[in-house]
Amino acid sequence: MLNVAKTRLERQFDFIIEADKEKSIYRQTRLSNGKDHENDADHAWHMALMCILLSEYSNEEIDVLRTISMILIHDIVEIDAGDTYAYDAQGVSTQREREEKAADRIYNLLPPDQAEKLRSLWDEFEEGKTPEAKFARTLDNIQPAMLNNATNGIEWVNHGVRLSQILNRNKNTAEGSAALWNYSFENFIKPNVESGKIIED
Amino acid sequence: MLNVAKTRLERQFDFIIEADKEKSIYRQTRLSNGKDHENDADHAWHMALMCILLSEYSNEEIDVLRTISMILIHDIVEIDAGDTYAYDAQGVSTQREREEKAADRIYNLLPPDQAEKLRSLWDEFEEGKTPEAKFARTLDNIQPAMLNNATNGIEWVNHGVRLSQILNRNKNTAEGSAALWNYSFENFIKPNVESGKIIED
Repeated sequence: MLNVAKTRLERQFDFIIEADKEKSIYRQTRLSNGKDHENDADHAWHMALMCILLSEYSNEEIDVLRTISMILIHDIVEIDAGDTYAYDAQGVSTQREREEKAADRIYNLLPPDQAEKLRSLWDEFEEGKTPEAKFARTLDNIQPAMLNNATNGIEWVNHGVRLSQILNRNKNTAEGSAALWNYSFENFIKPNVESGKIIED
Repeated sequence: MLNVAKTRLERQFDFIIEADKEKSIYRQTRLSNGKDHENDADHAWHMALMCILLSEYSNEEIDVLRTISMILIHDIVEIDAGDTYAYDAQGVSTQREREEKAADRIYNLLPPDQAEKLRSLWDEFEEGKTPEAKFARTLDNIQPAMLNNATNGIEWVNHGVRLSQILNRNKNTAEGSAALWNYSFENFIKPNVESGKIIED
């Protein structure tokens, strides 16, 4: 069916139903029960909740609604592009291209004004330059570290993750919030280096 | 460990880690793949996304951030109280008591100001009187109807759901948004009455 024939509300529901697939994209991270893996919708919900509770620690003042909007949609592209594990170098090398193509298809299910708005929020998140994007990216890095720590570092062990990889991935985490990066390093990362779950290199 | 000895950030993370359990509370609703069941975090994420895209259809003007905050935390009590299926009369009869007790425990993991803020948002949602609560409750009813329709009414059939039960559950849905209730009735409910997936009584 051609989109042009559809009403605004039909296009909005086309996108909303398509977005449902995000609940079946599984991440490497496990839930705090140590058993099940987390899906992309779980992850986005958790980050949005963290944003409400932790925005006071942002280095710069942020528009919380704008940040949450960014968080809620930041992984929608993975419906087509799949989840790319942060420490999978080959996956990371093709990630941008796969995700751009996905964004073109998925956001354009929406009416043009909303397609534009969400795509622009996603681009902002990816660029990571505004205070909102910096803070959202900080949460995107801290949330899995928190769960990896809560599950005794099982996924760090499974993937043989080295401290240098974690520090490289987190090289901009303090830009969103020095306080949260510090807390994450001291409470989620360092104890797992000390216990050998993360390889000190 | 006594909470009084904890820092603000420790208490915030205690709550955030506890909230992770919401991802393991499964609902009767199935995902659009027709196979897996939806969890509470999936559901809240989907509603929050819908709130961003559909707030233009609210009968009354709403504060979107306040509405999303309410949505993100509205099912946290189910960590202790479990999910109560809307058409389980016995479960519904004890739901309020179980959920109040859960709210007392879980929200109080937070520092007092945030415990108070989130508890008050949950109470507001439960009371359903403000424009924000009315709209959040409209989404809470429309989202599962949308998924039930997307999965050929499988859960309506499994539970032998009658139209009168659906109309009773939705008696206030139009209060948040007449346009969304109308769309939901015409597109998600009515076709399933016509095809016999919902029992017409």
